[in-house]
Amino acid sequence: MTSKAKPNPKHLVQGDPIPPLKKGVPRLFSFRFCPFAHRSRLVLAAKNVDYELVNISLSKKPEWYKTKNPFGTTPCFEHDEKIVRDSSIVCEYVNDAYPGVNLWPEDPYRKAQDKMLLDYFGSKISPPFFKATYHPPPSSTEDFLAVYQKELYVLEEELKKRGSAFFFGEKPGLVDFIMWPWFERWAVLGEDFHRENYPTLMGYCGRMKEDPAVIEAATPDEIYQNNFKKQMEGNPQDDY
Amino acid sequence: MTSKAKPNPKHLVQGDPIPPLKKGVPRLFSFRFCPFAHRSRLVLAAKNVDYELVNISLSKKPEWYKTKNPFGTTPCFEHDEKIVRDSSIVCEYVNDAYPGVNLWPEDPYRKAQDKMLLDYFGSKISPPFFKATYHPPPSSTEDFLAVYQKELYVLEEELKKRGSAFFFGEKPGLVDFIMWPWFERWAVLGEDFHRENYPTLMGYCGRMKEDPAVIEAATPDEIYQNNFKKQMEGNPQDDY
Repeated sequence: MTSKAKPNPKHLVQGDPIPPLKKGVPRLFSFRFCPFAHRSRLVLAAKNVDYELVNISLSKKPEWYKTKNPFGTTPCFEHDEKIVRDSSIVCEYVNDAYPGVNLWPEDPYRKAQDKMLLDYFGSKISPPFFKATYHPPPSSTEDFLAVYQKELYVLEEELKKRGSAFFFGEKPGLVDFIMWPWFERWAVLGEDFHRENYPTLMGYCGRMKEDPAVIEAATPDEIYQNNFKKQMEGNPQDDY
Repeated sequence: MTSKAKPNPKHLVQGDPIPPLKKGVPRLFSFRFCPFAHRSRLVLAAKNVDYELVNISLSKKPEWYKTKNPFGTTPCFEHDEKIVRDSSIVCEYVNDAYPGVNLWPEDPYRKAQDKMLLDYFGSKISPPFFKATYHPPPSSTEDFLAVYQKELYVLEEELKKRGSAFFFGEKPGLVDFIMWPWFERWAVLGEDFHRENYPTLMGYCGRMKEDPAVIEAATPDEIYQNNFKKQMEGNPQDDY
């Protein structure tokens, strides 16, 4: 069985030259393990955009990267002379600039509801996930995994209330692609994470993993796990 | 000369009943001195929306307000059965839901540029303004006014580069209305603020103050100054 995932080029580091721009082909500067860059790869795949993926090491950034994004973060999308930064702005830009399905609800209130959910996700749900994985006890006295699991019920209940296969509807939309990177990273959570408490979200994850855009942008669980192990050993590695 | 500003009802406090909903008339829950709520009032005025302004005391919130917004913040916009929170989401919702001029650029890249500027404004430019005004030395060792004045050059240069009367173009748009509340509050900055260093922005402020939406949502300088003085004396007051 061949993988349908987009090939993952080696991360460029200090000293590496900037790859020549292919005329007419936009490119995404990404870091494979950055959940924010992952958002953009999902939306580019969902909109069927033909783009070049340029991987950047965030710990050993190539010198020229600051000319693309002075803030040094990923993602950064280069489209002809145009540069777009920040994951949500890149996702909205790609949705607006390319033809095909609109990944926001057409109805203004449904769109506002998705944005309010994303706002809550970004401020309350994803931060404890990050802290639980990278700063678990004893480095912290707070049990962030407990906080994360409590917050996750908000999504469990919301999807149940919406009653659709995905948060967007019968197909995934921006609301799904913007949150998905944190679901895919469940792979690094250990046995203290009780995924069985979230049956609606477990069904959702199963459906998401069959979506063509999710497959194209996916990283296998064992690569997340290896990467996480290396990080925690203080020996981070970008390429596998 | 009569004021063209929208009348400012007394702020509702603990014990005050919720005003009856006027059928078909949306309402905005706002706090007069909240710059985030101010954004929504500007956009509602710019879109010529007929709405009821309901002022809420943030320090002595009426008990029922949590049924409108469990987070307790302003603005919160109630439109029939629909509730929209968070200033940027309210502004975008009002822009999408009501007819009339689109306050975002039609071009996806121009729109992304406005969003990147707003992102920078929210993360780098408005925070030191708040700290400089409410936590000046000696309560802080950092000179936030100096930080603010340095960051303000980003806007001075950006408007010069855009070469238009407003950030949006020849009329103000969402990018302008979302930033304007922090310009109107220049009224509370003392003589250490050197506005003369920002000639492009000073011209901009003069033009903004003549815009009908800015006039409708405006608070006079002396009211900001009184309010600020009361705050700093530890004796905050909502109504003037």
